[in-house]
Amino acid sequence: MEAIKKFREMIKKMKAYQYALTIIGWDSNTEAPRNSFERRSEMSGYLSKELFALRTSEKYQETVKVLYANLEDLDDLLQREVKKAKKELDKIVNIPEDEYVDYMKLITHSQIVWEDAKENNDYQAFKGNLKKIVEYNKKFALYYDSDSNPYDTMLDDYEEGMTSKEYDHFFNTLKRDLVPFVKDIVRKSNHQYDELRSQSYPKEKQREFSQYLLDEFAFDKKSGLLKESVHPFTWNTSPEDVRLTTKYMENYIFSSIYSTIHELGHATYEQQVSTDFDDTLLNGGTSMGIHESQSRFYENNIGRSLAFWQTHFKKFQELFPEQSQGYTALDMFKASNHVEASLIRIEADELTYPMHIMLRYDIEHMLMDGSVDVDELPKVWNDLIEEYLGVRPKNDSEGVLQDVHWSGGMLGYFPTYALGSAYSAQIYYAMKKELDIDQLIKDHNIQKINLWLKDKIHKYGSSKTPKELMEMVSGQKFNPSYYVRYLKEKYSKIYN
Amino acid sequence: MEAIKKFREMIKKMKAYQYALTIIGWDSNTEAPRNSFERRSEMSGYLSKELFALRTSEKYQETVKVLYANLEDLDDLLQREVKKAKKELDKIVNIPEDEYVDYMKLITHSQIVWEDAKENNDYQAFKGNLKKIVEYNKKFALYYDSDSNPYDTMLDDYEEGMTSKEYDHFFNTLKRDLVPFVKDIVRKSNHQYDELRSQSYPKEKQREFSQYLLDEFAFDKKSGLLKESVHPFTWNTSPEDVRLTTKYMENYIFSSIYSTIHELGHATYEQQVSTDFDDTLLNGGTSMGIHESQSRFYENNIGRSLAFWQTHFKKFQELFPEQSQGYTALDMFKASNHVEASLIRIEADELTYPMHIMLRYDIEHMLMDGSVDVDELPKVWNDLIEEYLGVRPKNDSEGVLQDVHWSGGMLGYFPTYALGSAYSAQIYYAMKKELDIDQLIKDHNIQKINLWLKDKIHKYGSSKTPKELMEMVSGQKFNPSYYVRYLKEKYSKIYN
Repeated sequence: MEAIKKFREMIKKMKAYQYALTIIGWDSNTEAPRNSFERRSEMSGYLSKELFALRTSEKYQETVKVLYANLEDLDDLLQREVKKAKKELDKIVNIPEDEYVDYMKLITHSQIVWEDAKENNDYQAFKGNLKKIVEYNKKFALYYDSDSNPYDTMLDDYEEGMTSKEYDHFFNTLKRDLVPFVKDIVRKSNHQYDELRSQSYPKEKQREFSQYLLDEFAFDKKSGLLKESVHPFTWNTSPEDVRLTTKYMENYIFSSIYSTIHELGHATYEQQVSTDFDDTLLNGGTSMGIHESQSRFYENNIGRSLAFWQTHFKKFQELFPEQSQGYTALDMFKASNHVEASLIRIEADELTYPMHIMLRYDIEHMLMDGSVDVDELPKVWNDLIEEYLGVRPKNDSEGVLQDVHWSGGMLGYFPTYALGSAYSAQIYYAMKKELDIDQLIKDHNIQKINLWLKDKIHKYGSSKTPKELMEMVSGQKFNPSYYVRYLKEKYSKIYN
Repeated sequence: MEAIKKFREMIKKMKAYQYALTIIGWDSNTEAPRNSFERRSEMSGYLSKELFALRTSEKYQETVKVLYANLEDLDDLLQREVKKAKKELDKIVNIPEDEYVDYMKLITHSQIVWEDAKENNDYQAFKGNLKKIVEYNKKFALYYDSDSNPYDTMLDDYEEGMTSKEYDHFFNTLKRDLVPFVKDIVRKSNHQYDELRSQSYPKEKQREFSQYLLDEFAFDKKSGLLKESVHPFTWNTSPEDVRLTTKYMENYIFSSIYSTIHELGHATYEQQVSTDFDDTLLNGGTSMGIHESQSRFYENNIGRSLAFWQTHFKKFQELFPEQSQGYTALDMFKASNHVEASLIRIEADELTYPMHIMLRYDIEHMLMDGSVDVDELPKVWNDLIEEYLGVRPKNDSEGVLQDVHWSGGMLGYFPTYALGSAYSAQIYYAMKKELDIDQLIKDHNIQKINLWLKDKIHKYGSSKTPKELMEMVSGQKFNPSYYVRYLKEKYSKIYN
């Protein structure tokens, strides 16, 4: 079929542009000299425009249309791919061009406005932009599907198939079953390990420990590498080229350890996707939520386990003989699971983290159904965080202005963070039925865990939906009660 | 004028592709994981093809033609640019497409064949490819200009305006005035500093010394960076983004020191080009020869001077207290100017280096005028190196097979290496009239030398020809006698 050939060719062309933009972005985030900024945005802006032109070209639209009209003649994988292509197109091409252009300008500008507003603690300066962003997003969602709740369309952008109904169920479960528990634990939290956590750890030694972790987690160094950046992230151009970064903070050892392990979760996922998908739209992890489930699984279920510290405390002592003096593996375990009610999401621990997400979900929900106005956000925010965690921001920079997401138009993204953790708990209990996780950690055999995840999740890339994967890996639909159970079991033990 | 606008737009488009390919290449040479090779060649191959299509498109050809027909209406800079564009096009578009495609395949294949041949010391396996490469290059040169000597066309590819007549004069001067001197010095060379040169120097300390050199040479770290690679090189995307690499060898300290300084010469040149040329064909250094003159000037005229070691031996002692014990700045100066007749070009010292180039020029010349056949090259090679340096290869891997250039179709490139050194000597004597170079080195004020070179050479980018620049900087045409004088003065002193 002629259309298939054309489709393949055009996808391949897009891949080349994406490849270039990924490498340029990687360079920019990890080493490019400061003064190169302006020229780079001009050059990569040009390439992005070319890519966008390809993605929305008449020829591509026509080809996808033809294939979509003949879906039943295609094999399963191609069907999935064409449906994805069709959906991506539908989300863009129904938007009038001038509105799209205006929106792109708005977003670019809003990020600078947000930065300044955060810096100056001035929500008034930002709220006009936010209001417009919310309106545009609603409008665009309705262009795509005028019959659906706009927020559902946005949620689906980041987690295929998830609706506000399902997220409501998820967050209501947390509100009912978790909030009281979290408040209770937070009250019991203490400063016993502050010294261990915040004393000085030379960066050079931290680097060594991160490299050691790469090996322990069986990361394939011939198909990837570790570097540093201001905000840790993982990028890939193919399973044979997966790069992660971490952040070394002299006075906070857990920053690099858990950034490295978290990103190793993302990276291992990407390294284990089948290379068969390289030239298709089915490459890479399937969704934000599933991706985050992997990074959280590695970070929390493995990296913050007692077995982990029983196994690796020896290496830690070797690298930090003075700093570790007088402490045990159990201390490390407890210190790495320190709980504290904080105001800032990205500094939150495993237990309080979902509270931060819940509040953002509540707010997005209300913005979308119109039950709250952009003007009222600071107060709504502060009330909610106080309700969930018992702390109240002194200003909007540590409240509603703290995150970049909304200024970039990302509405519907936040809930995937909590969803990922909840997925990882469900995966954890499924894995426990087949593997002795603690023993594998102690045996320095995380590779076996990697392979289990490869077989159940990773190898499929985006060829399965998140819902299909959750059923395949755990034998049942997504069920938030595993998450509550996991957190209660773990933190009850630590805090008696 | 409509054509100017079109021309500018197309050049800008090409710049974006070049930008992407440069960053991808940089990544590939300095850190990309090993297994990423295949995918990268596919992706960057695609982008290169797009770039080539732009460069040879009807639209571009048409635009250049229109501008060329109206040259006199254009300002000087645009005239120069259009002429460059016209010449580049003429060198490609007159070649029949099938021949061009065949040649590209031949070259890609030949590099693998050459690698194997070198590895197996088997010239017979390579000579068939070399013969074809020579024939194609002759043919292509004649397509461009059937009236000129084909070798002149090739020489002009790498050094605008240079002909075999001028190179003959240059190399004949060296043969007459330098060969006997070199042979004499080589006889006097000894192994007094072998220990100082080849003892162990920890790489970490070498890295520190290279970073120190970056500062001493006033390299702008906000507009560039230093990394490592197998073969040191310098790449740039604009004067605000200039990256160099060096190579750290535990048992050869001068590798990193002089690679760093050499590349700093290239890098300083690129950093000091006017950013006005960013979006034109006049960006970057003007020719191979002028570029090499800068790298050699920094490496040899500054880095291998007595003043250099008198100034920086202190830092060297600080980093290598044990290794430097019992030595003086004078020893460092002498050790870094150690002369030895070697068989391998890339290992040659400043004095014997031009001998290696001379022999390659002789051979290219003979290949081009047909006075020697590809079959006879090994013997011709061995005879010539013996004549110039008194050493004879035991096999072709250390003889005719040692360099990659010919397998990549680069005929006419080699002479620019020696030309660069000769230019640098002429520039050196011109600079000495205006600056006290030694004193500036001792005053840690290399920045003043940088600025002198910026003003006389660097800032012009490619807007001036090599010949124009040599006249501007030294007040006279290129004159090889400065080179002979410089080498004789320097090495007579060292070797009495």
